[in-house]
Amino acid sequence: MSFIEKKISGKRIYEGKILNLEVDEVVLPDGSVSSRECVRHHGGAAVLCVLDGKVLLVKQFRYLYGKEIYEIPAGKLEKGENPKDAAARELREETGYVANDLKPFLKIFPTPGYTDEIIHVYLAKCCGLGSQQLDKGEFLNVNLIKIEEVLKMIESGEICDSKTVSAIYKYLYENK
Amino acid sequence: MSFIEKKISGKRIYEGKILNLEVDEVVLPDGSVSSRECVRHHGGAAVLCVLDGKVLLVKQFRYLYGKEIYEIPAGKLEKGENPKDAAARELREETGYVANDLKPFLKIFPTPGYTDEIIHVYLAKCCGLGSQQLDKGEFLNVNLIKIEEVLKMIESGEICDSKTVSAIYKYLYENK
Repeated sequence: MSFIEKKISGKRIYEGKILNLEVDEVVLPDGSVSSRECVRHHGGAAVLCVLDGKVLLVKQFRYLYGKEIYEIPAGKLEKGENPKDAAARELREETGYVANDLKPFLKIFPTPGYTDEIIHVYLAKCCGLGSQQLDKGEFLNVNLIKIEEVLKMIESGEICDSKTVSAIYKYLYENK
Repeated sequence: MSFIEKKISGKRIYEGKILNLEVDEVVLPDGSVSSRECVRHHGGAAVLCVLDGKVLLVKQFRYLYGKEIYEIPAGKLEKGENPKDAAARELREETGYVANDLKPFLKIFPTPGYTDEIIHVYLAKCCGLGSQQLDKGEFLNVNLIKIEEVLKMIESGEICDSKTVSAIYKYLYENK
């Protein structure tokens, strides 16, 4: 059975720096009418980089959680930007590392109930080191942490970020 | 080095059914002022249930992606609801399955740049079968799919949902 929802009308509530919010009126499969709260986002790109058994992680303050958290290097796509180019750019800007070879690794819908964001995760095989070039207003620390330690940090709940957790478990599963 | 952002003021832009949007003015670590777009959400609960090597998945239309996608059973917490109770409730309502034993499995921040949602994922060891009780306006199909097949669906990009991908890879890694 297929359950399609058809848009009747849409209202732009907010236009922001990283997201827009729209509320659409839709027809449900039984003919009834409902609304859908839609966070519209350009998408993100991230890089899992494992160097000599150590994972490249950035630690940054995430205002929404009120604390600093560890994540693989990532950022949002600029308008029209190719996800692979964005991944290489974010890796370079955030950490100074330059990827010689980026392979598609995972495609993630972070929370499909209210955002259309797609996070494209790449695996970086080898990385040379350049210099960090953070965006204005961006503050973060770069860390190389042994993958066994990263696993413990996930198990203890210290690392919760979805792109990081997915990528680490996929990597561990494929390399066990 | 620690990088804290302090709230100066906040503005409620939208109050909705599943999310609120606020835009806060904050002071960054260098003393400059910026804004943070904050999607506020009560949090979610999900259940990974593996029965005789098959994974319980629901397939539902996700308006934000314009298609039906597979996810582990999940839903949002009701105000003040315990995540474990919510997980058991959503499993029962969406699939008819009743969990005898729910163990904490993962805690996920789906996309920490703009939402404060936490998704609590539980592992259901054993499940009895009751009857589905969908919410009004909720339409979905229930599927039991072999875990090897689910892995292929992740690898092909057919399954992208972050809680599902994280939970499946963790389960596969721990049971390899």
